[in-house]
Amino acid sequence: MIHRLLIANRGEIAVRVIRSCRELGIEAVAVYSEADKDSLHVRMADRAVCIGQADSKSSYLNKRNLIAAAVASGCDAVHPGVGFLSENADFAADVEKAGLIFIGPRPETIAFLGDKVAAKRTAQEAGLPVIPGSEGAVEDAEAALSFARKVGFPVIVKAASGGGGKGMRIVRDESQLASAMKIAGHEAETAFSDGTLYLEKYLENPRHVEVQLLGDGKGNVVHLGERDCSMQLRHQKLVEESPSPGISPAIREDMCSNSVRLFEKLSYRGAGTIEFLFDGENYYFMEVNARVQVEHPVSEMVSGVDIIKAQIRGAVGEELGFNQRDITIKGSSIECRINALAPGTVSYYLPPGGVSVRVDSFLYPGYKVPPYYDAMVAKLIVHGSTRREAINRMLRALDEFVIDGLSVNLATQKRIVSSPIFQSGRFGTSALETILKEV
Amino acid sequence: MIHRLLIANRGEIAVRVIRSCRELGIEAVAVYSEADKDSLHVRMADRAVCIGQADSKSSYLNKRNLIAAAVASGCDAVHPGVGFLSENADFAADVEKAGLIFIGPRPETIAFLGDKVAAKRTAQEAGLPVIPGSEGAVEDAEAALSFARKVGFPVIVKAASGGGGKGMRIVRDESQLASAMKIAGHEAETAFSDGTLYLEKYLENPRHVEVQLLGDGKGNVVHLGERDCSMQLRHQKLVEESPSPGISPAIREDMCSNSVRLFEKLSYRGAGTIEFLFDGENYYFMEVNARVQVEHPVSEMVSGVDIIKAQIRGAVGEELGFNQRDITIKGSSIECRINALAPGTVSYYLPPGGVSVRVDSFLYPGYKVPPYYDAMVAKLIVHGSTRREAINRMLRALDEFVIDGLSVNLATQKRIVSSPIFQSGRFGTSALETILKEV
Repeated sequence: MIHRLLIANRGEIAVRVIRSCRELGIEAVAVYSEADKDSLHVRMADRAVCIGQADSKSSYLNKRNLIAAAVASGCDAVHPGVGFLSENADFAADVEKAGLIFIGPRPETIAFLGDKVAAKRTAQEAGLPVIPGSEGAVEDAEAALSFARKVGFPVIVKAASGGGGKGMRIVRDESQLASAMKIAGHEAETAFSDGTLYLEKYLENPRHVEVQLLGDGKGNVVHLGERDCSMQLRHQKLVEESPSPGISPAIREDMCSNSVRLFEKLSYRGAGTIEFLFDGENYYFMEVNARVQVEHPVSEMVSGVDIIKAQIRGAVGEELGFNQRDITIKGSSIECRINALAPGTVSYYLPPGGVSVRVDSFLYPGYKVPPYYDAMVAKLIVHGSTRREAINRMLRALDEFVIDGLSVNLATQKRIVSSPIFQSGRFGTSALETILKEV
Repeated sequence: MIHRLLIANRGEIAVRVIRSCRELGIEAVAVYSEADKDSLHVRMADRAVCIGQADSKSSYLNKRNLIAAAVASGCDAVHPGVGFLSENADFAADVEKAGLIFIGPRPETIAFLGDKVAAKRTAQEAGLPVIPGSEGAVEDAEAALSFARKVGFPVIVKAASGGGGKGMRIVRDESQLASAMKIAGHEAETAFSDGTLYLEKYLENPRHVEVQLLGDGKGNVVHLGERDCSMQLRHQKLVEESPSPGISPAIREDMCSNSVRLFEKLSYRGAGTIEFLFDGENYYFMEVNARVQVEHPVSEMVSGVDIIKAQIRGAVGEELGFNQRDITIKGSSIECRINALAPGTVSYYLPPGGVSVRVDSFLYPGYKVPPYYDAMVAKLIVHGSTRREAINRMLRALDEFVIDGLSVNLATQKRIVSSPIFQSGRFGTSALETILKEV
């Protein structure tokens, strides 16, 4: 069993992990950068170690300092949190090399899943649908047309060496394909000195749906249902919920059981998520997040499982203590990410309370939010017996939330949650842009 | 449907009702005494009406002022909260006479259940066990002995006109009975000019267990399981939980289904509780609380039902929207009442957060707690998948809770929840005295 655990992170997720440590009787050791000495996670931990200067590279991304802090403070385990080094296979391996338990998947699993191409292939082999692609370079317009006819328009032309949108073209009908290939090829040649192109089916405004999984590292895996994270802007999720309001029970069952099968194949240890895109008919495997996610509380709310505790149990080879039959997904849960719009000092703080409202935050009255890190300062999570009740509860809780002295996105969140699009439950990943445009 | 609701109460329960109003789209009208103008329920409500001076008699117990405020502010309903006029049949009747909806049982039901003797008789007729009593005056020591032999020792001798412990004697064996009768009779004669005595079986350190019920006023009744409120001192409950750690599934099933039968017989409307004592083998009906109770959140936590919303729905003749089959009692929930030990001003306030922690309070930074009312300033409620997890979570949340400037009983609550007696789950109503004595 673990006696003392170092949390290699800061802010809200560090507070979250400390809370579960407390409840498990594990001593929590916080780390902090010089900019974070007044942070709540430092105050809440049993002890705290300074690991470097404000910039993340010197502190929260500094593997050597983190492991030294864990060893020097007599820890027997390290929890990486989310972000920073949480999906860094080298860090996980270094933690284990230092004789410490890494709270997360095995380093090999993280490394393997970090290779997106290999992960996609493995998912496909395990029977998960992937977005139809040309499986390698497309030589000319004729081969491209043949592929596009097979999968149907729209398709997307991508540069094999590409990134950042360069060498990328969405093609909606046959007449545009040849010229798109030409332009993309030229762009790719110019930008990456490699004009090689491949094609994929393009999903228009798909849903982002992801399955939460837990494994014991011995092949036992359970899922906690799915989350819908379609309310995102430039890949930044703002509102998440569980269950997804846009998939049928049949799709849900298929998606979740396929996800379990893939994780069983990996003998996955700890918490992980499989992200999918859903086009209204079919779902497609995107990638695995081999760590806990920011939006994990909505799954905790509907399943009643403490995911961080399950991670810790999984890492020390304990059994999960429950199996799929024991998990019932009950009601509906929504999370709003409360982000600071600029650094500032909290002059007054009163979080919402009452029935089925949860606040995960590191704010406190007088706290000066440093400018160096993530903008998220709180997560507001609610549960309701129905999605309608959860929506009304979220609006009530957003109204109650008082954060003075710090500019935050509470008004934006009210706009999103009260919008007809969100309330209808019918939306994809481009909906948020539409909602935020309408004034 | 209700459009505007007056909450004839203050503090935590007023805030609680406002929250449910918000979620139902009902405008909430607060009332306040002159001492309460800065109270959180006043700030949170859509509007607020001053109803009198600080003393409760002039304000929160002033029926005429309350009803005038409801009418003048255009309300169509009144919620009485807990305490004050919440079980006052005359108030309920006056509210209805003014053409307003009373959120609670019908006035006749409240009046009927307020007569403890009639309520006990009705409970007995409905098949609920009651504490064996002599059913009227016991003339002499011989009749007393005959009763005591029938029900077994210990018994309690009580004055028919009694109260306040006068004319009351616990008798543990036959040899003490005659002298106890003599002394009690003499005391009763002196104190009440009435020496009439009766006998009841005496329960030594029983459990206080109560069943939460909801009715639609048309004979449909569901229960939300039971609560254990044995952790009380001089009838003041301090810690409550659900389910009770001390009754078997068979007793639970029997107690709950018998309770439903009684409420069906009453065509009960809204939320109500039946209180029982349990001696380790049998349970005995004590009384009905024809209102919501302070400890209702533990039942909300394990059942997922918002009891205040159900009350409001019941009062307007809506169906409950669920039946017994839909209710699953999941996990374990504990509530600690946080009481102010003296009036004072909150200089710093940071409630606990995170997974499965709920805070119902009316405190905020800068709030001056007035000296006139109930000592309770917050309710801290947690849920866990097991009682063990709930206990650990409560201890963690109690540790996190920061209330500065106001002297509160957080330390006492930590002592109770961390005591071996509480943790064992084996305790009755005298346990708390023992726990608080041990230092």
